[in-house]
Amino acid sequence: MEIFTAKLRVRTYECDSYGHVNNAVYLHYLEYARMEALYQKGYTLGIMKEKGFLVVVRRIEIDYKHPLFMNDEVVIQTNVSDARQSSGSFTQKVIRQSNERIAALAKVTWVFTDLTGKPIPIPDEIRTAFGMHLTEQPE
Amino acid sequence: MEIFTAKLRVRTYECDSYGHVNNAVYLHYLEYARMEALYQKGYTLGIMKEKGFLVVVRRIEIDYKHPLFMNDEVVIQTNVSDARQSSGSFTQKVIRQSNERIAALAKVTWVFTDLTGKPIPIPDEIRTAFGMHLTEQPE
Amino acid sequence: MEIFTAKLRVRTYECDSYGHVNNAVYLHYLEYARMEALYQKGYTLGIMKEKGFLVVVRRIEIDYKHPLFMNDEVVIQTNVSDARQSSGSFTQKVIRQSNERIAALAKVTWVFTDLTGKPIPIPDEIRTAFGMHLTEQPE
Amino acid sequence: MEIFTAKLRVRTYECDSYGHVNNAVYLHYLEYARMEALYQKGYTLGIMKEKGFLVVVRRIEIDYKHPLFMNDEVVIQTNVSDARQSSGSFTQKVIRQSNERIAALAKVTWVFTDLTGKPIPIPDEIRTAFGMHLTEQPE
Repeated sequence: MEIFTAKLRVRTYECDSYGHVNNAVYLHYLEYARMEALYQKGYTLGIMKEKGFLVVVRRIEIDYKHPLFMNDEVVIQTNVSDARQSSGSFTQKVIRQSNERIAALAKVTWVFTDLTGKPIPIPDEIRTAFGMHLTEQPE
Repeated sequence: MEIFTAKLRVRTYECDSYGHVNNAVYLHYLEYARMEALYQKGYTLGIMKEKGFLVVVRRIEIDYKHPLFMNDEVVIQTNVSDARQSSGSFTQKVIRQSNERIAALAKVTWVFTDLTGKPIPIPDEIRTAFGMHLTEQPE
Repeated sequence: MEIFTAKLRVRTYECDSYGHVNNAVYLHYLEYARMEALYQKGYTLGIMKEKGFLVVVRRIEIDYKHPLFMNDEVVIQTNVSDARQSSGSFTQKVIRQSNERIAALAKVTWVFTDLTGKPIPIPDEIRTAFGMHLTEQPE
Repeated sequence: MEIFTAKLRVRTYECDSYGHVNNAVYLHYLEYARMEALYQKGYTLGIMKEKGFLVVVRRIEIDYKHPLFMNDEVVIQTNVSDARQSSGSFTQKVIRQSNERIAALAKVTWVFTDLTGKPIPIPDEIRTAFGMHLTEQPE
């Protein structure tokens, strides 16, 4: 199972009055890391649209374990944890590099749709690129 | 059980390239609505700090059901769904007012801490203000 | 000369580590207020696209005079200060309501374009709606 | 005169419904690049606070020249263009790397203050680190 890695350093404007990274900003980090994974495999939003499909987030579960602070070096690990007919999920770990501690742990459930928003089977090329095997039958 | 209501209209910059409200922005909406609930009961971040406590989000589960678009009128309903010794959760509904459809449904788990981040029992005044009754014993 | 008014209350996530509203967020406030002015006259981004024109920001000058803090009630006043052939400018004041003090003062220069980005004369209906008179000849 | 360089790639959530980077996001980019310049010289917000000073933005002028799109590689060049007693300015260029075109050009005026917000002379160590020479007498 391939693990995709994205890196960033916490920017000042991402911290809120508590002095640490705002909860909503973690979702930006997660989105950034998912897009990086797609980008590494040759997919951008534009390319997917041309091919007639989109991937849409249906559900996010995120546990905030330890705060992140300004200038922290951060690694986000993303891997496919589940793939069904048209939907599946990523597990994403937000790791503070200096102490290798997990700052946040997320499970992101997505579905592939056509350009009108109707669910479609996960495209074969995506299954191949990401090594997605059907993990469960019923959806 | 009291339901707190916050209202807003979707602003242009909250929409992303998909043309609808970005997933991370929903967490802003949820935070805004929780802060509104606290505000309606007389609590701001500053007042809580003076009193020596903070409320920290530990986990968010959010289901994205229907997209929101620019200028949509939105209502966010927030209520206490669970309260233990020092932690508990809110249920939050993001509702698109024009068709009364739930755009997103969230469960937000929080913990009360002192100013050093150590969990403390939910302050009595908070229990009273929000009608929180111990719903479960073990934590 | 008509002055358009938009109101908001500072939200927690708009404040940064300095404890006050982040500089970039003011541009969100200004955009929100401009869109409100358009909205009050019956224009949304969608409607303008249908009619074949867009208004694009070319330059912003903003003076930060006094900080804004969480929960501050804010009024943004917007008025046309200048209109030429295809471009013009708004003056925008961000006012902290409690002491009627100007938090920020901005001049926003815009241009009307067709959907390909080519400048076009300011549409007549816009001139009428906003009471824009040619203020200067050369552009 | 030293030119500081910061790099980034445009992230999906930074683009708005127009399909390009939102105007307010440029201010994030500029702030990021200024903080990078300080960071390269050994200064963080925390360190400056410990030393008893802060640098506060007073005015921003920004010209939007060409749009930026998702996944664009961007370079931001920052240099001191002016230094007086306690205030001065940076010139900042946001450059789209693929065609070396200037996407935006900004002049950012700042002032050094103590921790209460009162203007103070630019600290000597800052003058040395950034090669700031008094460029004009009256302030």
